[in-house]
Amino acid sequence: MTTALASLSNPQIRLAARPNGLPVASDWLLSQEPVAEPAEGGVVVQVLAISLDPAMRGWMNEGRSYIPPVGIGEVMRAGGVGRVIASRHPAYAVGDMVAGGPGVQHYWSVPAERVGRELSKIDLALGSPSQWLNVLGMPGMTAYFGLLDVAQPQPGQTVVVSGAAGAVGQTVGQLAKLKGCRAVGIAGGQEKCDWVVRELGFDACIDYKAAAPAGAKRWDAVREGLRQHCQAGVDVYFDNVGGEILDTVLAKINRRARIVVCGAISQYNATTAVAGPKNYLSLLVNRARMEGMVVFDYSARFPEAIAELAGHLKAGAMRSKEDVVRGGAADFPATLLKLFSGENFGKLVLQLAE
Amino acid sequence: MTTALASLSNPQIRLAARPNGLPVASDWLLSQEPVAEPAEGGVVVQVLAISLDPAMRGWMNEGRSYIPPVGIGEVMRAGGVGRVIASRHPAYAVGDMVAGGPGVQHYWSVPAERVGRELSKIDLALGSPSQWLNVLGMPGMTAYFGLLDVAQPQPGQTVVVSGAAGAVGQTVGQLAKLKGCRAVGIAGGQEKCDWVVRELGFDACIDYKAAAPAGAKRWDAVREGLRQHCQAGVDVYFDNVGGEILDTVLAKINRRARIVVCGAISQYNATTAVAGPKNYLSLLVNRARMEGMVVFDYSARFPEAIAELAGHLKAGAMRSKEDVVRGGAADFPATLLKLFSGENFGKLVLQLAE
Repeated sequence: MTTALASLSNPQIRLAARPNGLPVASDWLLSQEPVAEPAEGGVVVQVLAISLDPAMRGWMNEGRSYIPPVGIGEVMRAGGVGRVIASRHPAYAVGDMVAGGPGVQHYWSVPAERVGRELSKIDLALGSPSQWLNVLGMPGMTAYFGLLDVAQPQPGQTVVVSGAAGAVGQTVGQLAKLKGCRAVGIAGGQEKCDWVVRELGFDACIDYKAAAPAGAKRWDAVREGLRQHCQAGVDVYFDNVGGEILDTVLAKINRRARIVVCGAISQYNATTAVAGPKNYLSLLVNRARMEGMVVFDYSARFPEAIAELAGHLKAGAMRSKEDVVRGGAADFPATLLKLFSGENFGKLVLQLAE
Repeated sequence: MTTALASLSNPQIRLAARPNGLPVASDWLLSQEPVAEPAEGGVVVQVLAISLDPAMRGWMNEGRSYIPPVGIGEVMRAGGVGRVIASRHPAYAVGDMVAGGPGVQHYWSVPAERVGRELSKIDLALGSPSQWLNVLGMPGMTAYFGLLDVAQPQPGQTVVVSGAAGAVGQTVGQLAKLKGCRAVGIAGGQEKCDWVVRELGFDACIDYKAAAPAGAKRWDAVREGLRQHCQAGVDVYFDNVGGEILDTVLAKINRRARIVVCGAISQYNATTAVAGPKNYLSLLVNRARMEGMVVFDYSARFPEAIAELAGHLKAGAMRSKEDVVRGGAADFPATLLKLFSGENFGKLVLQLAE
């Protein structure tokens, strides 16, 4: 069963420089390493699929954040799923399917002291490998705890989520519906919006890229969409994008509304200062709150969320969509850019092997 | 005991136009009315002192807010205290001291149907008339519920408050100290800062007007002050000012910090868009929250707060400072501007009569 590791080579993407704005080719370095036999207690994983997340852009920056930045010269941090191909750890056998943070590389050697902390077994009966990077992975966990723990929507309330066709957004809206809320998405393009409504069952989805009427300002489509689809105002806004869309929603919030600050993809590549929400005083007028969340804080409770979400998937009460790009580690830099152009449709995954 | 009302004239300040930026003389109208005898169930109050509050600037704007705007031609809305000089209401006798919302005028005729809702008796044994507009009035209530209910500081945590020498700020910091917290103020000018530390017992106070070292940016004094005085970070920020100071504090908040959005005096006269907090993503990194509050929501619990605050005053555990301007209603427009220049020192009060 054991693969001849010595015959394998491990392509890796390393961070070569800190980007200024959108990452460019010279910010990356493609390296190649041999794959060594695991030491006592260690495991070697063949990485099958890598998760591409907006948060990656933040990890590339210098400075204080919720986790340390990726160091220059280090393998780029990434979540992923894979198959154990060599093991000297009693809890893992060759062939076990696992999830963890392999980084952008084809083979992940996990030393003994990190196996317990960084690896977890996954059950392909509950979801496909790419679903384990989506609704059963970090995006799903983010949606679950951000919506249910931080925002705490009540039945009948209106939940708006941006990036609605993206990894986190798709699960936020579907969970909101399952909890008896009205779910309104914001996404870029008619195709995504149609899918969010027809396939995921959101009540409505606003196309922020819709052509504004002559003379109208760029965000009038969002303003008009909120007016039309949130006639009872907005009780919860799950924000993945920041910028003008956040401002536009702030103008529509209800008393005691909750805004979950999950991300701000519109700002991640800004080369000038981040645009702060000009309408933040709507929080005062409406006694509302805006609260940040980081999914890692909930790791002890992931099993609870996975059980519920896998149940919804199995019952057909929830769907997921992954945008799977097949390629090697070398394709990572170009694939990542799809997130920032909005070109991806669903959770973006780089599949390295079947 | 009854004053001859027919002999009195009632000078009033009315809103003549909606200001663009700082209010100017032409935004106001001085009117004069006779004082009528009260109808059955009504009360007439001689206004002794009027409260001047930053929030007044917001009430002058058109548009949706937490209370309707003052209408053009209406007497300017204002809190105040006064003495009953005529009463046909069983619960009020001539000579009773009351608080309420008389507006900017010398005599306040309260019709029967509004007496119960708008008037309350005050006890001068608990505080002076101007203290009833300060620590025992709306600013004190705002400080009490904003700090204790919204921010919920724990002993040993660091509470930062801007506008520290102002009406709300002085009580926020003193309450924080009484609850076992470290209290750090931000105020404009060395005299205010010295008073906040020496007289009110704050641990430190940062002078945001302090001259920046050569080559430094304007807000470096605040940044440096926070670095020096909040070495364990900021757990609670009670924001009365918004703008660059809010941004500077956001960069120093701790995990699970709470920012109370009470006001944004730096933005109230802005003629361009409000400056949103560029550092709002610090909420995400730190899993922190920013929450708005409006004091009127707590009116049912004012007696509890008044009892506690009056107790602190009586015990000498809390002090208050009012900046009392003596004059008539006609002096209101010029006096109000002291708030926005930061010229006032303590709670700004216009005293119309002894």
